[in-house]
Amino acid sequence: MTDFRLDPRLAADTVTVLDLPLSRLLAMRGVDHPWVILVPRRPDLVELLDLAPDDRAALSAEIDRVAAALRAQTGAHKLNVGALGNVVSQLHVHVIARFRDDPAWPHPVWGRPAVRPIDAATLEAFVADLRARLA
Amino acid sequence: MTDFRLDPRLAADTVTVLDLPLSRLLAMRGVDHPWVILVPRRPDLVELLDLAPDDRAALSAEIDRVAAALRAQTGAHKLNVGALGNVVSQLHVHVIARFRDDPAWPHPVWGRPAVRPIDAATLEAFVADLRARLA
Repeated sequence: MTDFRLDPRLAADTVTVLDLPLSRLLAMRGVDHPWVILVPRRPDLVELLDLAPDDRAALSAEIDRVAAALRAQTGAHKLNVGALGNVVSQLHVHVIARFRDDPAWPHPVWGRPAVRPIDAATLEAFVADLRARLA
Repeated sequence: MTDFRLDPRLAADTVTVLDLPLSRLLAMRGVDHPWVILVPRRPDLVELLDLAPDDRAALSAEIDRVAAALRAQTGAHKLNVGALGNVVSQLHVHVIARFRDDPAWPHPVWGRPAVRPIDAATLEAFVADLRARLA
């Protein structure tokens, strides 16, 4: 794990929730939705295909673990899970809690400006709660 | 598998590539990009979390198998993988070949009208080639 470095843009856009066995879990700032990102702590990953088989299995398990916690925490109507990487190439997986009355529903949220961004105190409480659920 | 029924909207928007051990693989019509969709052939699935553990592992393996074939076939610059389901609730996973000069780059492609949609003959040849790679 010595060569892992978080992409500076991901670092700037997020706060850290905690480190899972494989992935660093981040929470997005300045967005409308509870939105977290898993970044496997391995160097030089771009595609899911770049993961070693054991790490690929671990990432799927961590996605599900985070998604279950996020749904339990937020009561999300739908989870959106995606690995895109068109802008930030470092492999990262979005897990987003969606609601039928959220500002972007039913569209995807990537690339849309926030309409009612989560304020700093709400984000801090969200992160603390999610961290406790996953610790 | 007796109770699996493909959502009518997914059926209308796609052509079938082939059945993998777990998933039906579909190719989207009328879009700008080589774009395929995996639908696990199990009834009543909405979230990745709804899959039994063995099926979840099988789906991850099938996503990677399809993604590798799609990249080899198309020379994609980036793969976009996502499970959204805000419009069609039946669990389905998109795998999309993206190019730095494609009409939507670097934005996600969901919900965008096609600019230069793949014509029917090109789609047919794409599906036949992908089917051969995965058979």
